[in-house]
Amino acid sequence: MTSEPDSSGPGFLYRRRVEFSDTDTAQLIHFTALLRYMEEAEHAFYRSLGIAGYEWRPDGVTGIPRVSVRCDYLAPLRYAEEVEVRLLVKEVRTKAIRYEADFVVARPDGDSTVAKGEMTVVYATRQHGSLDWAGAPIPTEMKNAIAVAGGLVVGDGGV
Amino acid sequence: MTSEPDSSGPGFLYRRRVEFSDTDTAQLIHFTALLRYMEEAEHAFYRSLGIAGYEWRPDGVTGIPRVSVRCDYLAPLRYAEEVEVRLLVKEVRTKAIRYEADFVVARPDGDSTVAKGEMTVVYATRQHGSLDWAGAPIPTEMKNAIAVAGGLVVGDGGV
Amino acid sequence: MTSEPDSSGPGFLYRRRVEFSDTDTAQLIHFTALLRYMEEAEHAFYRSLGIAGYEWRPDGVTGIPRVSVRCDYLAPLRYAEEVEVRLLVKEVRTKAIRYEADFVVARPDGDSTVAKGEMTVVYATRQHGSLDWAGAPIPTEMKNAIAVAGGLVVGDGGV
Amino acid sequence: MTSEPDSSGPGFLYRRRVEFSDTDTAQLIHFTALLRYMEEAEHAFYRSLGIAGYEWRPDGVTGIPRVSVRCDYLAPLRYAEEVEVRLLVKEVRTKAIRYEADFVVARPDGDSTVAKGEMTVVYATRQHGSLDWAGAPIPTEMKNAIAVAGGLVVGDGGV
Repeated sequence: MTSEPDSSGPGFLYRRRVEFSDTDTAQLIHFTALLRYMEEAEHAFYRSLGIAGYEWRPDGVTGIPRVSVRCDYLAPLRYAEEVEVRLLVKEVRTKAIRYEADFVVARPDGDSTVAKGEMTVVYATRQHGSLDWAGAPIPTEMKNAIAVAGGLVVGDGGV
Repeated sequence: MTSEPDSSGPGFLYRRRVEFSDTDTAQLIHFTALLRYMEEAEHAFYRSLGIAGYEWRPDGVTGIPRVSVRCDYLAPLRYAEEVEVRLLVKEVRTKAIRYEADFVVARPDGDSTVAKGEMTVVYATRQHGSLDWAGAPIPTEMKNAIAVAGGLVVGDGGV
Repeated sequence: MTSEPDSSGPGFLYRRRVEFSDTDTAQLIHFTALLRYMEEAEHAFYRSLGIAGYEWRPDGVTGIPRVSVRCDYLAPLRYAEEVEVRLLVKEVRTKAIRYEADFVVARPDGDSTVAKGEMTVVYATRQHGSLDWAGAPIPTEMKNAIAVAGGLVVGDGGV
Repeated sequence: MTSEPDSSGPGFLYRRRVEFSDTDTAQLIHFTALLRYMEEAEHAFYRSLGIAGYEWRPDGVTGIPRVSVRCDYLAPLRYAEEVEVRLLVKEVRTKAIRYEADFVVARPDGDSTVAKGEMTVVYATRQHGSLDWAGAPIPTEMKNAIAVAGGLVVGDGGV
């Protein structure tokens, strides 16, 4: 069962400066850097909830890899500018979470949305001694924490 | 006027090994690396046509930045594996080009499509002494070269 | 004339978390990430002094590229750990600055120095419409600000 | 016992184009990219000898992490230029190998050495289910293959 996003929430906010190594010879941020920032914001979001984006355990590891990403680039972003990633939880499913992200820069003439991203991630586990990851149901406590923090309505049966 | 893709063409092929620095602690390729490979394939495609993906000229520079990217990750890709990027020209517009890319790995049990990407790029110029890029019509010769190489039908009025 | 470092100073402190994209398949931070952190710390140091690590001006740009870097890796550093870069100004010359950096992680059993780096950077300028960078004397005000902040003794004739 | 380098050998050659994502806003290659190229050359060297730079085995993994790197930057390197990494084996010890690398670009007015690097790597293993790497003696066959390919003299007692 999937919850509807609560439109009142601003989402999780993550601020990041564009580092020199994030730019390219066009004197703009390289397009992949914004996708890294989106992953950083997601992991910071988990951390704020006491969840690990990647965790080593006695019997194996857990992770939350991406299965799909998208980004639209709307305005230039340059070295040393500070960008705010506004991460929105759009949907929490049994094994997957869908996020949207607005990348916003404060400019002298007002806030500028320089890019809009989207990603779907899945909960996965890997046994020690194996290379193979397998998708798994998101633990209920984790699913609820993400949904609640993301402003989603958690139903009777959970999200 | 837009041309239809010619389904007979295999597109432009670009081979690349997954380098150690392209991987992450999940022991898989980091998701942004495939997006870099897609840009590398595109620039190699231009190079094969005598076109520069970025060019310094007496009065300014020309470039071909991305305005939108997307990637779906279908199967794992690991250190030292060789991946073939099959770049398809899907559409050539006045100022923009739309590409699709299949990422294919030869495995003992047959070819595996590990990811599918898409990107829209625009032709742009910047004057020396200015930071501002501006979209510009793709030069006719360049537009035709890309369309023809991409297997698109070039109409009487050009693509 | 070169000043002696003041051994009492802790240097400029810059904290950074190891992001997922900074790691590799050995499940450690990739060795180049620490070198990026060292550059980030340096640029943050300049910023704290009102100096730009890279600046666009009407007639050209100024930058502070590296001419030499070195790093020794002493202990493992992993995903999600926080590392403190302790940047020390070792020498300020007419056109160059030499830095050392200790990378320190707080661990349950005490602070651990996980790496030690060193770099020499030069002040350089480039005219708009030219690709060529040229080394230039560090502006006096900038040179003094860096030396003083770095705990160096500025002599009568400046550093 | 350490062998002397054979000065007649050109070392292992690895060619690489500077990709767009390797550059920065100074319109030069970012300094860390050359260090990545050095690692790529090293892994290509191992591959040419049938050695894996990182290997998954039933009981654990083997790898060859860096314990020290250095690079001096001598001349500019830019987008789309091709650079040749000339990797020299300088010393093979029980657990470590020391390399030097010249980065050479063919320019209209002759070859230009744009950078000179150096690195020391160690052979290491990690058991499945453990995060801890431990240095280990380089297997004799591997040590000999590297020394011979690198033009070192292998003595009676091995290198």
